Amino acid sequence: MVKVGILGVGTVGRSVARILIENGDIIEARAGRRIVPVIGAVRNLDKKRDVDIALTDNPADVVDNEDVDIVVELMGGVEEPYRWVGRALKNGKAVVTANKALLAYHRYELQELAGDTPLFYEASVAGGIPVIGALRNGLSANHIESIEGIMNGTCNYMLTRMIKEGAAYEDVLAEAQSLGYAEADPTFDVGGFDAAHKLLILGSIAYGIDAKPEDIVIEGIENITQTDVEFAREFGYEIKLLAIAKRNEKGVEMRVHATMIPQESMIAKVDGVMNAVSVMGDRVGETLFYGPGAGGDATASAVIADIVEIVRGNSGPMLGYKKGLESGLKLLGKDEIVSQYYLKLKVEDKPGVLAAVSSKLGDFGISIESMLQKPSRVEGKVRLLFTTHLCEEKKITMAMEELSRLDVVDEKISMIRIEK
Amino acid sequence: MVKVGILGVGTVGRSVARILIENGDIIEARAGRRIVPVIGAVRNLDKKRDVDIALTDNPADVVDNEDVDIVVELMGGVEEPYRWVGRALKNGKAVVTANKALLAYHRYELQELAGDTPLFYEASVAGGIPVIGALRNGLSANHIESIEGIMNGTCNYMLTRMIKEGAAYEDVLAEAQSLGYAEADPTFDVGGFDAAHKLLILGSIAYGIDAKPEDIVIEGIENITQTDVEFAREFGYEIKLLAIAKRNEKGVEMRVHATMIPQESMIAKVDGVMNAVSVMGDRVGETLFYGPGAGGDATASAVIADIVEIVRGNSGPMLGYKKGLESGLKLLGKDEIVSQYYLKLKVEDKPGVLAAVSSKLGDFGISIESMLQKPSRVEGKVRLLFTTHLCEEKKITMAMEELSRLDVVDEKISMIRIEK
Repeated sequence: MVKVGILGVGTVGRSVARILIENGDIIEARAGRRIVPVIGAVRNLDKKRDVDIALTDNPADVVDNEDVDIVVELMGGVEEPYRWVGRALKNGKAVVTANKALLAYHRYELQELAGDTPLFYEASVAGGIPVIGALRNGLSANHIESIEGIMNGTCNYMLTRMIKEGAAYEDVLAEAQSLGYAEADPTFDVGGFDAAHKLLILGSIAYGIDAKPEDIVIEGIENITQTDVEFAREFGYEIKLLAIAKRNEKGVEMRVHATMIPQESMIAKVDGVMNAVSVMGDRVGETLFYGPGAGGDATASAVIADIVEIVRGNSGPMLGYKKGLESGLKLLGKDEIVSQYYLKLKVEDKPGVLAAVSSKLGDFGISIESMLQKPSRVEGKVRLLFTTHLCEEKKITMAMEELSRLDVVDEKISMIRIEK
Repeated sequence: MVKVGILGVGTVGRSVARILIENGDIIEARAGRRIVPVIGAVRNLDKKRDVDIALTDNPADVVDNEDVDIVVELMGGVEEPYRWVGRALKNGKAVVTANKALLAYHRYELQELAGDTPLFYEASVAGGIPVIGALRNGLSANHIESIEGIMNGTCNYMLTRMIKEGAAYEDVLAEAQSLGYAEADPTFDVGGFDAAHKLLILGSIAYGIDAKPEDIVIEGIENITQTDVEFAREFGYEIKLLAIAKRNEKGVEMRVHATMIPQESMIAKVDGVMNAVSVMGDRVGETLFYGPGAGGDATASAVIADIVEIVRGNSGPMLGYKKGLESGLKLLGKDEIVSQYYLKLKVEDKPGVLAAVSSKLGDFGISIESMLQKPSRVEGKVRLLFTTHLCEEKKITMAMEELSRLDVVDEKISMIRIEK
């Protein structure tokens, strides 16, 4: 019998305990041994939890417990779980965590701490989709050329509603909040930070890049408007919040932002709260992994998969490599990105303005792929919508700065990156 | 250093040897040890192979070779590879195979033979997509409710062309043959047998069902016409060759056939030669795995992933369970299937015919979901197209038999199953 202790018995923790009990027979058939949840640590012992395990309000009762073989960390936060996970590993206990923030900041220290003790984290990225297993194991023969993921269900739900129904950002946000898909303060989701944490984890497995959230471009969907959505559709794109890791000759780009992608690509077809991760390997080509990115039972499914792996005696290095993965490959700076761009400007509706704007783009060596002029709701103004060919991000940034200084151009210029 | 011997150095075998060499550094970083291909067995030593390993025409030089740690079986066929794989296992060598036919017939004997020696087979289903890993490991917390897979790229390519371009079956088959997607004798692909072999493997991992090809419904796409495709689209369906394993209260249905599926489902969006497998777990919900189902490098990517797992010391039971997986769950007979159905009849264009046909369906308790009458190319005839609500397959079979005996109905009635 294998005994599991759980740090944090909220929605996911409760699902883990329940599934281990309710699906106990099939899990035993697969793992080879019975797996039993024995104790859970919670902050507030008075809260009713409807789960059939002993409860404590002291995490030490779990991580120092001689009766516990595997510790499941579902506390949330960064520094507190880091201490408890470290202590569990020191006690020789295998650990499973679903905590992406913890890993975004401490995955390399944790790999060091773990040594040969298993530390698994399938649930930390894309919830129930076994994408970490795919990247760590299934695609191990490949140099990874790119990862593009829809890894935040809240953003994807909101964008889907905006695209399919023409709903406005504010309305879908309010609705997402009332449905429980978005928090009262939605910044962590709609600002791209949640997706960025997940991207950093995948970036380590694919490229061995030791980066922190502050090292990469993180933008959200707050500025996406109906005009953008309509233009995108007109030109054959959908808009998705993508987390992207991508290698070129110079290094690895890592970034999270709203992105226009061709409607016919598989990842563009992922709607609603679902998640998907597309991985391009140099040998396998494109693979894509799709499923629920959140929810108690879906996340618990991934947590238990890790527990089963541990019980089977499987391990391998925590981040999928021992040393020298893609040696010499470095994270590129935020302005070293190369992409295609969509630009939206509001300008005076008078002769010569289009020429002035396009010649300014030309000055920076930015080559225009398509252009559309649309009436503005403001009298005497029009909207200019451009897409560019591939160009360096710093050129776009400089061009946007200079354009915004022109008398005939409104100060606020929108930019959305395009990936093909 | 880990030494690999290869039985069968064709397209995939050559890719395995080449990738192990060309991506040797990154594979070593992930596996923890250098993996080197050392010898390959071929039928004809005179053929040029452009691969840098020793060659022999005696498989015993590979499986009995003290220098070989892992044997990769890529010979094709059933009984011959079964003997060599058995001998390799007996010699204590770990084995990786991509041979779905071998596993369709001998997976349980092989699991027995292997014991604790690793025998991996990720490449046998859906080529480069790590779907066996997902099912064996990533979804191990779940009772599997259903598996629906597009697991034959040839059929999917042909159906996509028929759907998107209105091309006729014969024309796309000829084209698929000229592109090398289909064999001169295409029966194995278009008749559904290839997909069935793969389904049997997944059925073991998901349900522990020990079945052979002859035990399950296997139909192909040979009878799909443009009328079917057009009707399907009109009613919001795509037509795909699906391999389906599905549990209900009575047992497990396993079947391969052309299937109408709702256009908005993810698997309906899989076009061309690509493969995808949708798995419904009782806890995780729907997950889907998409990618290339064939090709030398893509298949080799999966073979090498298995080798890396073996080198890392990972194993677990070959079919994902030790004993008692879903105990008591049995394979349902071919006529115990429950589905929705599309029926296409050619009938006399005269009063009372529609009533006669629909009342005959009513006699069998078959309830009609939608109906469409279309002109036929034959003078004095019309086409009747029906879709039914859920009903037992034996009722449909009997109804079709009786309908075909009516004077006003042409003998040949087409049926396509519908899955939602």
